[in-house]
Amino acid sequence: MARLLRAATWGLVPWRGYCSKSQQGELSEGFVEALKAIVGSPHVSTAAVVREQHGHDESMYRCHPPNAVVWPQNVDQVSRLAALCYGQGVPIIPFGTGTGLEGGVCAMQGGVCINLTHMDRIVKLNSEDFSVVVEPGVTRKALNTHLRDTGLWFPVDPGADASLCGMAATGASGTNTVRYGNMRDNVLNLEVVLPDGRLLHTAGRGRHFRKSAAGYNLTGLFVGSEGTLGLITAATLRLHPSPEATVAATCAFPSVQAAVDSTVNILQAAVPVARIEFLDDVAMDACNRHSKLNCAVAPTLFLEFHGSEQALAEQLQRTEEITRNNRASHFSWAKEAEERSRLWAARHNAWYAILALRPGCKGYSTDVCVPISRLPEILVQTKGDLKASGLTGAIVGHVGDGNFHCILSVNPNDAEELHRVKAFSEQLGRQALALHGTCTGEHGIGLGKRQLLQEEVGTVGMETMQQLKAMLDPRNLMNPGKVI
Amino acid sequence: MARLLRAATWGLVPWRGYCSKSQQGELSEGFVEALKAIVGSPHVSTAAVVREQHGHDESMYRCHPPNAVVWPQNVDQVSRLAALCYGQGVPIIPFGTGTGLEGGVCAMQGGVCINLTHMDRIVKLNSEDFSVVVEPGVTRKALNTHLRDTGLWFPVDPGADASLCGMAATGASGTNTVRYGNMRDNVLNLEVVLPDGRLLHTAGRGRHFRKSAAGYNLTGLFVGSEGTLGLITAATLRLHPSPEATVAATCAFPSVQAAVDSTVNILQAAVPVARIEFLDDVAMDACNRHSKLNCAVAPTLFLEFHGSEQALAEQLQRTEEITRNNRASHFSWAKEAEERSRLWAARHNAWYAILALRPGCKGYSTDVCVPISRLPEILVQTKGDLKASGLTGAIVGHVGDGNFHCILSVNPNDAEELHRVKAFSEQLGRQALALHGTCTGEHGIGLGKRQLLQEEVGTVGMETMQQLKAMLDPRNLMNPGKVI
Repeated sequence: MARLLRAATWGLVPWRGYCSKSQQGELSEGFVEALKAIVGSPHVSTAAVVREQHGHDESMYRCHPPNAVVWPQNVDQVSRLAALCYGQGVPIIPFGTGTGLEGGVCAMQGGVCINLTHMDRIVKLNSEDFSVVVEPGVTRKALNTHLRDTGLWFPVDPGADASLCGMAATGASGTNTVRYGNMRDNVLNLEVVLPDGRLLHTAGRGRHFRKSAAGYNLTGLFVGSEGTLGLITAATLRLHPSPEATVAATCAFPSVQAAVDSTVNILQAAVPVARIEFLDDVAMDACNRHSKLNCAVAPTLFLEFHGSEQALAEQLQRTEEITRNNRASHFSWAKEAEERSRLWAARHNAWYAILALRPGCKGYSTDVCVPISRLPEILVQTKGDLKASGLTGAIVGHVGDGNFHCILSVNPNDAEELHRVKAFSEQLGRQALALHGTCTGEHGIGLGKRQLLQEEVGTVGMETMQQLKAMLDPRNLMNPGKVI
Repeated sequence: MARLLRAATWGLVPWRGYCSKSQQGELSEGFVEALKAIVGSPHVSTAAVVREQHGHDESMYRCHPPNAVVWPQNVDQVSRLAALCYGQGVPIIPFGTGTGLEGGVCAMQGGVCINLTHMDRIVKLNSEDFSVVVEPGVTRKALNTHLRDTGLWFPVDPGADASLCGMAATGASGTNTVRYGNMRDNVLNLEVVLPDGRLLHTAGRGRHFRKSAAGYNLTGLFVGSEGTLGLITAATLRLHPSPEATVAATCAFPSVQAAVDSTVNILQAAVPVARIEFLDDVAMDACNRHSKLNCAVAPTLFLEFHGSEQALAEQLQRTEEITRNNRASHFSWAKEAEERSRLWAARHNAWYAILALRPGCKGYSTDVCVPISRLPEILVQTKGDLKASGLTGAIVGHVGDGNFHCILSVNPNDAEELHRVKAFSEQLGRQALALHGTCTGEHGIGLGKRQLLQEEVGTVGMETMQQLKAMLDPRNLMNPGKVI
C-alpha cells in the first residue's frame, strides 16, 4: 500500500474540482448514472481506493485521483464516454497499466479515468504481412507470448510489461531500439477516439501497409501524444522475424569513456547489435546484490546479438575485438536462454535494485538523450553532479541511442530531498539541451518536463504544439496538465 | 523542349490569376520589385521560358507556370519572401529539382515559385553521431559523394537525383527502404519556414538526437506534407555506416507469384536484404534493350546484399536456396562495383527504358502499396487490366515493401488516352485500397490522388488533415491545390 500514499508535491497545480455544482471535484449522481448507462454498473467505480490506484503511476509523482474510473468493453463505449465527458466539460484521462514514469495518468483536474485494460483482444494477426492489431489491454509480454510459435515477435521493450497502446501513447522505446527502432518506427496505424467521440483511423480503417506517402502523417502525430489528443483504442504494429539465435554478453571497462567509445566503434563497424546497454559501477553493485549476479563493479556494457549461428560468431568476434581495443576486461557471453534471461532480468530489474538501496523509498528516473558523441562528457559530468547532490542513484542507459537514465531513490516525504531531485533533474535536462539533446528520450513530458519542452523546441515549436492541442482538444479536457 | 509543351489536362482546375488587378495572374510591378528587394534582381525571373520550366515535374501533368520564380540565397530571404507573399495573398510553391511524379510543383493558381537550389550547403556533418544537416539544394548523389571517405552514407534512393529536402517533403523512399527505411524513418529534424515567415525547427534548433519523446512529433508532420504546410529550408538526416561489402544478384521466375513468394520467404528468414526489386517481363525486355542487358524476359528480382564478406556469403546462399525452392532460374550475382552499377543503372533507368518503347511520349507512374500477402493477386490483376486497357506500360516494384509501379508511356496530346490512363490509375488505386493498401507508397498525393486520399483515410481522417492544413496555412496559399 506504500504506493498509494500521497507524497509531497513538486509544486504542481493542486487538485481541484471541475464541476461547479460539486466540491472537491465530485461528480453529480446523474453524471455517474450516465457513465453506468454506457458501460454497465459493474464497470464504473467511485470508490476511494480504486480512484487512488488510478491517480498515480510508478514514479514519485503525488497521487491525483480521478473522480471516477470506468472500464469500457469496446470502442463504441469509449466513443460514447468521450462524447459524454466532453459535452459536460469533464476531463478524460486514459489509463493502461499505470507503468509510466512521468505522472502521465495523474488526474490533475479530476475527471473520468478511462481504464482500457478490459479491451484486451489481439484482433488480427497478419503473419505474412508482419503486422498485428491489438486492443489497449494487450501488453508487450502478452503479445510476444501469443506470437511464440509464429516465428515473429514485437521487439520494443521498455522493461515494464506495459500495454502496447500505452507504449504508443508515450512514444516508448527501451532496449532493442538501437536495432529495431522505437514505437514511432513500429506503429503502422492507430484507432483513436477523438475528444468529442469521433473515431479516427490514422492510416485509414483496416490498413496495414508498410509505408505510405498519402497525406499528413496522422499516425506519427498520435504516437507520443501522451493521451492529450485522444484515446488510442487499437494499434497496428509492425512485427519482426524472430532471431534464429541469440547471444548475450557483458563486458566491464576501466572508465565510462571506454564503454561509450566501444559503443560508437561497434555502431561504426555496422555490427547489427540488438541491445547495447550501459550500467555504471553503482548500478552494477545494486544488480549484483538484488539479482545475485557476480559481475565486476565497474562501468559495464550488456549486449545482445541476433542472427544466424554463423552471423553471431562473427558479431561476437568483432565486438570482443573492439571492446578489447578499448581496454575491456571480463568479456563474457551467454548463449543459453536461461543464462541470458538471468542477465536481462537483472538489467530490467535495475530500477528495483536501485530502489532497494534505500528501503521504503520511491523512484524517479531522468531520461535525457544526446548525440552519442556527447555521451562521455555528459555521463562523467552527471556522475559528478550526482555525487555532489548527495542523492542516492545510479546510471543505466540505452547508449546505442544516446539515451540514459539516472535512477534515483527518493524519500517522498522529505520535501528538501524532493527539491534536490527536481533541481538535479532540471540541471541534467538543461545540460542535455546544451549538447543538442532532448530532455526525454522515451518517458515523455508528462507533468514535470513542460518547462524543459519549451526550452527544447523554442517559441515557434511550442506555439505549433499548442495549436495542435487546441485544434484537436479545444476545451483542454484530454489528460489536461500534461505535455503542454 | 518537348517537356515544356503544354499537355492536355485531366480536367484540372484551369490556370487563373489570383490578383484582381491583373489578367492571367500577372504580378504587379511593385510586387516584383519587392521580390527583387529581398533576393536581388538577378535572382528573380518572370521570363516565360523560366516560368514554364518551373510549372511541371517529370510526369505528364500539364504545365501550370508560376508568375515569377525566385532563387533565395539563405533562410532569412525565404522567411521574408514567405511573409511578403502571405501578406499579399500570393500563392507560394517550393521548388527543388523538379523530379517529382505527381505534379507537386504545378502552380495551379499561379503565384511565386521559390526555387531553393541555390541554398546548397552541406551545413554540418556529425560523423560520430551518424547525422548531417543539408540545405534544400543538396541532392542525394551530392551528399553521398561528399560522404565518400567518411565510412557513412545516406541510403534512401528514389532513383532520381532528387534534393534531400524535396525527398523529405514528398515522403520519398525507393530501393533500400526494405532495410534502411524511408524518409519518415531517416529525417531527424527539419528547419521549416512557415507560411507567414516564422522559422520552425521541428525538433528544436540544432538538435540531432537519435530519438525523443518530447511533445508532438512535428518532424513527422512535415515529412510528406508536399510543400503545403511550409518550406523546408534544411534537413537533419540520419546516416548509416557504409557496408563493408556489397553483392547484387538477379534471378528470374516462371511466375509473378513465385517471385513474390520468394520475397516473403526471404523476409521471413530475416535475411537482411538491402534491396529487393521486382520487374515484370515487359520491364525486363525494355531494360534489356535500353541498357544492353542480356537478362531473361521473365518476372525477375533484382537484389542487393550489404555486410561483411562472411555475412554476404551466408545471405547469398540462403537467398539462392529460397529462390530455387520457388523455381527460380538464372540466379546470378555480381560482386564487382562496375557490374553492380550496370545492373542498378538498368533498374533505375527502367522509367526511361519504358518511355523509350514509344518515342515522344511522356511518363506516368502508378504507386500503390499493399500488405505483402496481397501482392501476388494485385500484380496478376494489374497485368490483366493493363493488357485490357490497351495502354503501353510495365510493372516494377519495391516488393519488399509491397510497393509497385505501373510505368505508362502516354501520348500527352491524346485526350482519350489520357482518360484511359486516369481510369486505369484510379481503378488500381481503388483495388489497393480494397486490399488494405494505400494509393501512394512514395510519390505523394500531389494533384491526381486527392479523391483517392479521401477514400483511403475516411471522413474523420480527411477532416483532421483539413484541420491541420487550415491551422498552419489558414489562407491556403502554400502550394494550393495539392494533397487536400
